[in-house]
Amino acid sequence: MSSEDEDDRVFKALGNRLRRRILDALKDRPATTGTLCEAFPELDRCTVMQHLKVLEEADLVIVRRDGRERWNHLNALPIQALHQRWIGSYAAYAAQGLLKLKTGLEGSAD
Amino acid sequence: MSSEDEDDRVFKALGNRLRRRILDALKDRPATTGTLCEAFPELDRCTVMQHLKVLEEADLVIVRRDGRERWNHLNALPIQALHQRWIGSYAAYAAQGLLKLKTGLEGSAD
Repeated sequence: MSSEDEDDRVFKALGNRLRRRILDALKDRPATTGTLCEAFPELDRCTVMQHLKVLEEADLVIVRRDGRERWNHLNALPIQALHQRWIGSYAAYAAQGLLKLKTGLEGSAD
Repeated sequence: MSSEDEDDRVFKALGNRLRRRILDALKDRPATTGTLCEAFPELDRCTVMQHLKVLEEADLVIVRRDGRERWNHLNALPIQALHQRWIGSYAAYAAQGLLKLKTGLEGSAD
């Protein structure tokens, strides 16, 4: 699979807001599939598992099995790679500063 | 427009590999639309402009006009924002190290 194929999968996976919310839920700690289903009571288990499969295929989620439990871990590497592709280490500091400024200005405009 | 609507546009824009190549071409310096068309001789001008429009709507490209020229600038902020959303400042250093390790290992496997 080429790197561009991998990127296609990453952006397809991130293009859905429910999948983005699942990644949000995994940001601070891994979660079992059961815990994730409880966190999204509006979705049936099958839907959550389908979204997790797309995220796993894009390598944004890594699954580890422990007995009967599936633990889902956020994998930061594809996100770091696209950051590196268009920002790079040198510009990251400046971009970070600008983002803080923008968030600050938006907050003060409320 | 909600932040999720903005993210939908960003990922839709990045989901196309030609648009990703246009962003690559803008990484180091801004370019006029004419220069970009020359850089992609396999595409007609109309196609390049359509892709630029999608990138501009996603705020990934900012256009400045200078006389009759349109200068296209890469805007790093949406990419920085999604990096911040799932990685954050504290984990960035570790993710950066892991990415270097992965790239190094892949390179040594050639």
